[in-house]
Amino acid sequence: MRTSGPASGPSDTPDFRTAAHRLTDWIEAYRVRLTNLPVLPRVQPGDVEAVIPPRAPESPEDVESILADLDETIVPGLTHWNHPGFMAYFASSASDPGILAEFVTAALNVNAMLWRTSPAATELESRMVDWVRDFVGLPDVFQGVIQDTASTSTFVALVAARGRAVPGVRELGLAGRSELSGCTVYASRLAHSSLDKAAIAAGLGLVNVRHVDVDERYAMRADALHEALAQDRDDGKRPVMVCATVGTTSCTSCDPVAEIADVCSLHDVWLHVDAAYAGPAASLPELRPLFDGWERADSIVLNPHKWMSVPIDCSVLMGRNLDEFRSSLALTPEYLSSDTSASNLMDVGIALGRRFRGLKLGFVFRWYGAEGLREMLQRHCDLAREFAAEMAADARVEVAAPVPLSTVCFRAIPPAGHSEEDWNRRLLSAVNREGTIFLSHAELDGRFTIRLTIGSVHTERSHVEAAWECLTKALEHLQSDPATAR
Amino acid sequence: MRTSGPASGPSDTPDFRTAAHRLTDWIEAYRVRLTNLPVLPRVQPGDVEAVIPPRAPESPEDVESILADLDETIVPGLTHWNHPGFMAYFASSASDPGILAEFVTAALNVNAMLWRTSPAATELESRMVDWVRDFVGLPDVFQGVIQDTASTSTFVALVAARGRAVPGVRELGLAGRSELSGCTVYASRLAHSSLDKAAIAAGLGLVNVRHVDVDERYAMRADALHEALAQDRDDGKRPVMVCATVGTTSCTSCDPVAEIADVCSLHDVWLHVDAAYAGPAASLPELRPLFDGWERADSIVLNPHKWMSVPIDCSVLMGRNLDEFRSSLALTPEYLSSDTSASNLMDVGIALGRRFRGLKLGFVFRWYGAEGLREMLQRHCDLAREFAAEMAADARVEVAAPVPLSTVCFRAIPPAGHSEEDWNRRLLSAVNREGTIFLSHAELDGRFTIRLTIGSVHTERSHVEAAWECLTKALEHLQSDPATAR
Repeated sequence: MRTSGPASGPSDTPDFRTAAHRLTDWIEAYRVRLTNLPVLPRVQPGDVEAVIPPRAPESPEDVESILADLDETIVPGLTHWNHPGFMAYFASSASDPGILAEFVTAALNVNAMLWRTSPAATELESRMVDWVRDFVGLPDVFQGVIQDTASTSTFVALVAARGRAVPGVRELGLAGRSELSGCTVYASRLAHSSLDKAAIAAGLGLVNVRHVDVDERYAMRADALHEALAQDRDDGKRPVMVCATVGTTSCTSCDPVAEIADVCSLHDVWLHVDAAYAGPAASLPELRPLFDGWERADSIVLNPHKWMSVPIDCSVLMGRNLDEFRSSLALTPEYLSSDTSASNLMDVGIALGRRFRGLKLGFVFRWYGAEGLREMLQRHCDLAREFAAEMAADARVEVAAPVPLSTVCFRAIPPAGHSEEDWNRRLLSAVNREGTIFLSHAELDGRFTIRLTIGSVHTERSHVEAAWECLTKALEHLQSDPATAR
Repeated sequence: MRTSGPASGPSDTPDFRTAAHRLTDWIEAYRVRLTNLPVLPRVQPGDVEAVIPPRAPESPEDVESILADLDETIVPGLTHWNHPGFMAYFASSASDPGILAEFVTAALNVNAMLWRTSPAATELESRMVDWVRDFVGLPDVFQGVIQDTASTSTFVALVAARGRAVPGVRELGLAGRSELSGCTVYASRLAHSSLDKAAIAAGLGLVNVRHVDVDERYAMRADALHEALAQDRDDGKRPVMVCATVGTTSCTSCDPVAEIADVCSLHDVWLHVDAAYAGPAASLPELRPLFDGWERADSIVLNPHKWMSVPIDCSVLMGRNLDEFRSSLALTPEYLSSDTSASNLMDVGIALGRRFRGLKLGFVFRWYGAEGLREMLQRHCDLAREFAAEMAADARVEVAAPVPLSTVCFRAIPPAGHSEEDWNRRLLSAVNREGTIFLSHAELDGRFTIRLTIGSVHTERSHVEAAWECLTKALEHLQSDPATAR
């Protein structure tokens, strides 16, 4: 066995420092050439797998051959999330402090499942959630933990909400209880699919997810929510949770959280706020009104691994009363019992083991300062608005939804005789093939819509300008040969 | 905003290379001084949190001040999982290749939720699961994905099993269905608590978890399982899953998987095998018989972040038919639809976003080679057996359970008039206070039992010898002053 630590004696592998310097050079080189790579790789399903040996090597291989494969096989097969032209999905930034913190995290490699299995990891995590809460202007009553992703955070919140709505569910479950009819959850038609998945996983079932109607700004209609809740109560259903979204995935629309909170109070239902993407923008006074009422939520999810320059994974789940989360899920077998009353991260969530995720959040906050993060958020919103203004002034395209944050939804207007959907699919496909930028799509009112979203620490004005140029060129090409441009 | 990439222009933060070299030095220094630190930190709940400012800094801070806090606040508050004397819980190793791979992973920072959001990450993950499967001698029919932890893997398996046992559960859920009585799951009394937690989360309820009796070797009694299943069938219950454990947390006992598979076939119930800790040991021909029958499982969990030198988090979930997992959970909204039939990682699990975890598994396999990993596993098992033999020869202690793998359960035999539990609690507490090693405890047959487990790439013979010395010294001290040693 080759040994691994500097204290482990001689071996024929490079020492840690030499290897780390070699990797640092590799990372620097990757980041420099990144902008010359196509954002989307030019591979077909199976291409990468086909060149990886089917079995692990019996004997050790050297670092150079591992890095050569990284260059020859892996990088050409990656979608480059940190390419400044990646504007398809909500961004995730490999910021310097984020990368460096993950490096340290892997070296410490603690598992903060219990307070005592890493007091500092547990307490730093708790404190970093406080920093986030404070950064976005939420009151002290919110405490939280870090989960891997917003899907997990929402699922854990749903399990806690189910615990409140269905007495005894922890012990008795849901099946075979004659007093229970369906257990229902509510979200706007534009809410993220993670709520549907959570409803499946928690045993509530998809038929019990109510997709509430939206208004002309794609925001949930609080009156429609009220009606749905009243109807379900009349039908003997058990409402478990309402999920309000600030910054929907499709078009970053913002549900009227204060009105929704009123409805939740009236019907005594758990209010969860999904601000996975938009949350950090609450740090900008100008945008704070979009979040009005979220301080009345029972739970809130906000992902620093999206718009706060923290590498994936880092999803902050905050709750008004974490004990409700614990009582819905916690279990302590004898082999995990300890003689302290300190809180254990394992008690809020499904995963027992916990990475030391607070560290990267701390590195990022301190490296940039709160002011640096707000400047980035403001810059992204400004760039999105400027881009939307440019679109609005161009007769070939139209902005498809309001732009409250850093995401622009738009459509190209097809020449007479062409289907809108087909025209836009062709445009999107041409743009993504070209390689400079990567955009995605959504459906709004049944119409195919292209999305451009800005959120990476690496994205500057020049990249948004390049996106506009790439789009207009593709449009011109389409228009010059509308039949064959497919 | 300070920018982050080398392409982003000047800033007053250090360039990436300088900072990475500084962090490399810090990590090296940590690993050298690690063995002189107490394994368990000498802090009380709240100590760490008290010295972290309550709010994030407004302005950027420099790298040196971030590292100074790491030294002054974080490290003294950590439980050092990579201390070679950490023998309390199943180990997780910060191996060189694991740390270096996490460094690269953070720099690439891709999110492999969809095939197209990172083809290479998706396909490397799939291939690395093949390598693991092949390494442990499982047949090709098993395919898999990487989850964060075994708790999540087991939960996802339970949701898939529920999908098979309860038709329509995805759409209809569990509540309000008159045809359903309780949905039951089965595991030995010594199975990991993650199954109980999964049963809560999935809406089955704790009363529907059957803790099946064990034999004198702490292995599940297949006849007792059969009886429990037959009884539940008679009572109109719906059996969902049987979880067999190879390597229980308390004492690494191994359930008779082949016999259990027979019972599962007879009753047509999903068989899940929890080999989170022990799985890699199936690569040793001598130990393969412990796993007999696991090739008949519907799902298997095995954690490379335990005994395979991969940093946390890396849990491999394998299934005989991944489509059953997908059909139980998958959901594809328009904004995540893509024009390929390739498999998407998001479809097997709760989390949508996925870190590029295949990379560290690949680095570790190639750095050590399969032979290097087997040598480590063999060495750990040899050390555990030698330690147990030494204990067996000493009248002051007794080995409390068979030692099939790398974990030894034992008790000190108290002098007349002393309670066994009290005596052993005092011994454990004294040992853990001393700082050289960290051990944990479990309950076996209602008796307090001390556990010593070996599994870190950093643990060598000298550390196990030091553990024995530390234990015997603490025992001598206890015996010299049995009343006050508390």
